[in-house]
Amino acid sequence: MKIIKKIYEIWEGALEEKGHEPVLFPVVIPPENFEMEKEHVEGFTPEVFWVTEAGGDKLTVKLALRPTSETAFYQMYNLWIRSYTDLPLKSYQSCAVYRHETKATKPLVRGREFLWIEAHDAFATEKEAREQVAQDMEITKKVLYDALGIPFIFFKRPSWDKFKGAEETYAADSLMPDGKLLQLPSTHYFAQRFSKPFDIKFEDSDGNKKYVHTTSYGPPIWRTVAALVMVHGDDRGLVLPFAVAPVQVVIVPILYKGKEKAVAEKCKKIVDVLGREGIRVKLDDSDKNPGEKYYYWEMKGVPIRLEIGPRDVSEGVVVAVRRDTGSKEKVKDEKLAERLTEIADDTLKNLRERAEKRMMGSIKKAATLKEIEKIVETGIAKVNFCSTDATGEACAEKIKEIGGEVRGTWFGKDDDVNPLGSSPTTNVSRNNDGVNPKGCVVCGKKAKCVVYVGRAY
Amino acid sequence: MKIIKKIYEIWEGALEEKGHEPVLFPVVIPPENFEMEKEHVEGFTPEVFWVTEAGGDKLTVKLALRPTSETAFYQMYNLWIRSYTDLPLKSYQSCAVYRHETKATKPLVRGREFLWIEAHDAFATEKEAREQVAQDMEITKKVLYDALGIPFIFFKRPSWDKFKGAEETYAADSLMPDGKLLQLPSTHYFAQRFSKPFDIKFEDSDGNKKYVHTTSYGPPIWRTVAALVMVHGDDRGLVLPFAVAPVQVVIVPILYKGKEKAVAEKCKKIVDVLGREGIRVKLDDSDKNPGEKYYYWEMKGVPIRLEIGPRDVSEGVVVAVRRDTGSKEKVKDEKLAERLTEIADDTLKNLRERAEKRMMGSIKKAATLKEIEKIVETGIAKVNFCSTDATGEACAEKIKEIGGEVRGTWFGKDDDVNPLGSSPTTNVSRNNDGVNPKGCVVCGKKAKCVVYVGRAY
Repeated sequence: MKIIKKIYEIWEGALEEKGHEPVLFPVVIPPENFEMEKEHVEGFTPEVFWVTEAGGDKLTVKLALRPTSETAFYQMYNLWIRSYTDLPLKSYQSCAVYRHETKATKPLVRGREFLWIEAHDAFATEKEAREQVAQDMEITKKVLYDALGIPFIFFKRPSWDKFKGAEETYAADSLMPDGKLLQLPSTHYFAQRFSKPFDIKFEDSDGNKKYVHTTSYGPPIWRTVAALVMVHGDDRGLVLPFAVAPVQVVIVPILYKGKEKAVAEKCKKIVDVLGREGIRVKLDDSDKNPGEKYYYWEMKGVPIRLEIGPRDVSEGVVVAVRRDTGSKEKVKDEKLAERLTEIADDTLKNLRERAEKRMMGSIKKAATLKEIEKIVETGIAKVNFCSTDATGEACAEKIKEIGGEVRGTWFGKDDDVNPLGSSPTTNVSRNNDGVNPKGCVVCGKKAKCVVYVGRAY
Repeated sequence: MKIIKKIYEIWEGALEEKGHEPVLFPVVIPPENFEMEKEHVEGFTPEVFWVTEAGGDKLTVKLALRPTSETAFYQMYNLWIRSYTDLPLKSYQSCAVYRHETKATKPLVRGREFLWIEAHDAFATEKEAREQVAQDMEITKKVLYDALGIPFIFFKRPSWDKFKGAEETYAADSLMPDGKLLQLPSTHYFAQRFSKPFDIKFEDSDGNKKYVHTTSYGPPIWRTVAALVMVHGDDRGLVLPFAVAPVQVVIVPILYKGKEKAVAEKCKKIVDVLGREGIRVKLDDSDKNPGEKYYYWEMKGVPIRLEIGPRDVSEGVVVAVRRDTGSKEKVKDEKLAERLTEIADDTLKNLRERAEKRMMGSIKKAATLKEIEKIVETGIAKVNFCSTDATGEACAEKIKEIGGEVRGTWFGKDDDVNPLGSSPTTNVSRNNDGVNPKGCVVCGKKAKCVVYVGRAY
């Protein structure tokens, strides 16, 4: 929960910096709101929990536990937005949402209750709304990549995998060490799909009434924790980036008989010094032996451990041990805070590079279903594909049969329609399972796009 | 919502300082948990919302939307607590809870969904649990009184007004300017009433298995906002203490033709200077005239307004205006941050003293129902009362008929059993409605205690 609170703080800060204001809407949504947008209600209805009783009595109207809150926000946007001077309107709420997941649930990854942030924005023009989608991606980078060292790729989801009610959905996938992709934030361009049924109009500067364009952005807080655990963790436990570590530096005194006092004093002094620098420091002066303490705090993911023994007192140094690499160094007392900040930065850089190398290095071209099947065991397959419109769904189903999911086109990447390049591999030129390497990897028909395929959580 | 976030921050900080750790439990509680403590389930059942359907289907087991979370926490405390070394266990969660209120709901005061914090603590001994109750009162003082200037009195609630399932309930009441009392945090000593049905036992240092003693503490976040609005606000709008003001200082430039540039530059410089000091400062450089800006930011409760015109530029000063008193003063540029902090402190002191004087000054002794009726129109009546055990409930009902509620005995106050003192007033000695002034104000029987009566939200 402490990590979750830190992640919220970072994400809320990034949203507020870009002009979002915090709000909170009720946990329940009346059906008449919920049912306003056809695709949305059809998509979410199978997952909605309903509150139907209070005390001993049936409620006159049953109420939906919010699975997402577009239809709560938009009822108020209808009232709040009158003029172009009210735009853009950018609000977010930090809350739990509820979905009756039928797939196997997994802690932090897929739950029937989960913590997230949802930002709902309204704009005068399509252009501004699309710029918001790009800004949502920037915010994602600032939090996941810059602060937490988690790499990701924003894919434009195929039409059959869009958020229900969205015109377009862009979702950030990150590769987990087991070779599966975890969807992290997604951002959606709704065009006027919600503003029309909710009648959200504004008087423009030209005097005409127009419908707003809306977007929504959903950073999943629990899944971010899941990504931190899986992407950076190792066999000894968590490895936390400095920014979200509840304890950033742990001090373990190394006591020798008769010299306890000097060590204890130095430990306390360092707690004070680091505390004043705003570092979250913990002195473990429990009765456990140092080895047990190392084991315990490594499991908790504390980025830096300081070991302080009698010799360190006389030499005016401490021994700093990095959680990510295990490397040790002696640091002079007077340089400590400064050096710890450097180690923290370097740890983050190392975690990020390691994860990014793994993810980017896992991407391999595939020309056949068989190749896809092999590649997605550990990573991401890049393939020619007929279409991400509804016409391509049948081919995506074929890929699903061998365990892969079409995650979409790589947003902002200038992918050739032929990922195999001008000289297909021998394997492909043999074309041994009847697939045309220059066409869709499944049907062989003219490929309109390059898509990425992986196994998914 | 920004004020709410600040209040959460202050309260969570105060709880963590006293050893509480953040957690989060599910929003739903299965009936077998919820029904574990008899008084608790009987007390809350009339108010519980039930989730009974998901998708199109009935759930096998209907689930209670948490009205409070003792029965969620204790299921886990049963698993987490094994030994005396696991104690005390002190956790809190910041969340919304849900109660089907049947009295008229009021924004921020009585809602079917409301934000609060709930701390649930377990101890080895009754003594430690009772010390926690006292510590909860200290935490309340630190937040409400010290940081927000809201005075309160902790009353020990009569047995008929306890939290359902509690052995004892202590609740902080604050007087609103309309003469009604608003209940703010409450803290409950549960003895072993929950630990027995939930089988929460620990092995003590003497080797024996014992049931823990538990307490809970519930700071209401929305009601704290309500108290801020009502206690400190005036006819021009909110008056916010510095600690929770989203904008602490607003700068309004006073522009004269030809001298705009120097003023604008000074304003920007001051934004930078104050920002670096960690002050939340807002420059209102909109097109509205200064009067409109004053009006707007006063309504929002901004504690300090700075007016900067051409003369202030040449004199090296700014004009600071206090929201609470409206008083103006010239402050030298180089003293600004320091002086603003003083004004903020002084504002808080003034708000606190004003509210405290009103509340404490409203307490008047009453010897008859008629006197109570008069006193509770604007304040709090202090009366002799037969008993706060069940035997006194009939007398409390009589008081209710004239609009007053028995709020309980003043915790920690050494009240004489005869609040009228040794020489009853003439009015009372006349005893004109048959009440024995030295006995219970209602039944005239021997008074066991002095209680306080008020109208309540």
